[in-house]
Amino acid sequence: MSNAAKLDVLGVGNAIVDVLAETDDAFLVAEGIAKGGMTLIDTARANALYSRMPAGIEASGGSAANTMAGIASLGGKGAYIGKVANDQLGEVFAHDIRAIGVDYRTNPLIGGEPTARCLILITPDAQRSMNTFLGASSYLGEADLDAELIRSAQITYLEGYLFDRPEAKAAFFAAARIAHDAGRKVALTLSDTFCVARHHAEFTQLLSHVDILFANEGEAGELTGEKDFDASVTALTGKCPIVCVTHGPRGSVIAANGQTHRIAAAPVEHVVDTTGAGDLYAAGVLYGITAGLDLAEAGRIGSLAAAEVISHVGPRPQRSLKALIS
Amino acid sequence: MSNAAKLDVLGVGNAIVDVLAETDDAFLVAEGIAKGGMTLIDTARANALYSRMPAGIEASGGSAANTMAGIASLGGKGAYIGKVANDQLGEVFAHDIRAIGVDYRTNPLIGGEPTARCLILITPDAQRSMNTFLGASSYLGEADLDAELIRSAQITYLEGYLFDRPEAKAAFFAAARIAHDAGRKVALTLSDTFCVARHHAEFTQLLSHVDILFANEGEAGELTGEKDFDASVTALTGKCPIVCVTHGPRGSVIAANGQTHRIAAAPVEHVVDTTGAGDLYAAGVLYGITAGLDLAEAGRIGSLAAAEVISHVGPRPQRSLKALIS
Repeated sequence: MSNAAKLDVLGVGNAIVDVLAETDDAFLVAEGIAKGGMTLIDTARANALYSRMPAGIEASGGSAANTMAGIASLGGKGAYIGKVANDQLGEVFAHDIRAIGVDYRTNPLIGGEPTARCLILITPDAQRSMNTFLGASSYLGEADLDAELIRSAQITYLEGYLFDRPEAKAAFFAAARIAHDAGRKVALTLSDTFCVARHHAEFTQLLSHVDILFANEGEAGELTGEKDFDASVTALTGKCPIVCVTHGPRGSVIAANGQTHRIAAAPVEHVVDTTGAGDLYAAGVLYGITAGLDLAEAGRIGSLAAAEVISHVGPRPQRSLKALIS
Repeated sequence: MSNAAKLDVLGVGNAIVDVLAETDDAFLVAEGIAKGGMTLIDTARANALYSRMPAGIEASGGSAANTMAGIASLGGKGAYIGKVANDQLGEVFAHDIRAIGVDYRTNPLIGGEPTARCLILITPDAQRSMNTFLGASSYLGEADLDAELIRSAQITYLEGYLFDRPEAKAAFFAAARIAHDAGRKVALTLSDTFCVARHHAEFTQLLSHVDILFANEGEAGELTGEKDFDASVTALTGKCPIVCVTHGPRGSVIAANGQTHRIAAAPVEHVVDTTGAGDLYAAGVLYGITAGLDLAEAGRIGSLAAAEVISHVGPRPQRSLKALIS
């Protein structure tokens, strides 16, 4: 039996500031950018692409951090672990996540690479194509894990994007161990099809330490090798107690305890920017689970949170999600 | 007779990155912030206020820079002179103004104060209350004036906000002299009632070198000492060939050559954030004048540009103003 948890969810991920700009398909083609995907870029490419992309706005992002913003907006208690540099964008990231009520205390990287930036190009069809310069964020390691924080959260939520460095991989396994030793749950989002392809074996290995899995249809297919959506969900069900797979405008499926819940997408009048859709879906589901709601209701909250974030530019909620779901 | 100008407008102002956050009246009261105004703040106050204000977004701002963004969006040719630091927010400012097609080449400040930030609190009534940390922007001086650029522009547009440092004041008088020697015009915006009050004598002196003046009702009253709107317009008419005074939702008045044009405000379905309203009004009027349109038509474009910018969060146009006015 575990003690009562002080926190609902602890997120662990890449601490990133987004640069969002509207562009057209021709720009993506000219720059060789895969539409709708996430590409890792180095300093030189980041500078070159930034010099050619349109004027933008800057907003705190990062997948798990966006999820934590959603949980806070829903009224949940959260904390976040992720690494920025001691620079202006790092201050922006730290300010924003604290200002929404998320406990954030990770030491910034000193004298190294700058805070991570994601250059996000939004096309008129509301698709976002992400170009991520990981910078300081990928220097997160085991030393940054606050074991007391992990033990105090009902769920520790890990962002698959972090898997691109061995130190972060090791930190994930360590975090899962600390959480389970304290009788807590571990959740994981697969984050990106290419990330799954790059680290297939390790993701499969980590999955045996995961209680709640988030994936979209592409990631689920990549991890299981199944081409059919339902077949990939079934395959994942055998590996993880609770499996949540999103399916774009068709909604999502949550499978657990031999039951499959099909969740409809919430209606959106005008889809503006899909950045953060999956992150906010996860926020709703995790909030629902920690609030003791059943999985169908948790899924409904996930759909509502995702619908809010895709109706405006930017990866975090602009309205109170707590007010929206009540 | 002057040569054909290569540029329509050259803007000179404080190069600032805005931090925009939504808040409520109670927060303004608790922080002692005058609603709707602009307050200069130092580093300590900037850090303290930022630590307490809500999560925000960052967007390039600066009064004259916003005006230049408007002129570019209308299809005009522009350049900008203003000082950032060699830091991340400075890169953001430089990128954004260049990306919209404005020529920007001012050398950044090295090893000094950081790039200027304006902490803008937007209340539910769409009013913006600005708290400006001038940082590097106030180090603009005569050495930063590119005389060739000034000579190549039909109009050099000066931002009154810069008047808070003697070096910038001297630069304004120098810029006006270079422009007039080349047969070009000089425009000035009074920017802020308190700024006018602080530098009343110098503004009055500068006015004799100004061809086109922009002011809102408060600034016009402060400069002339007149309490009545029409009386302040009349008083300014004697000091400057073209006088444009805005009057909030009531529209504006443009007085020139013994004629007074009353310009209606353009309708806005939902006013979201009034940041940039005056800047974009000036953009429309200056664009109209440089395009050879009559003053009533120039005023109409000013109203349309202002209406666009107050219908969303952020100080610069999000839609093509050229498409909007055609």
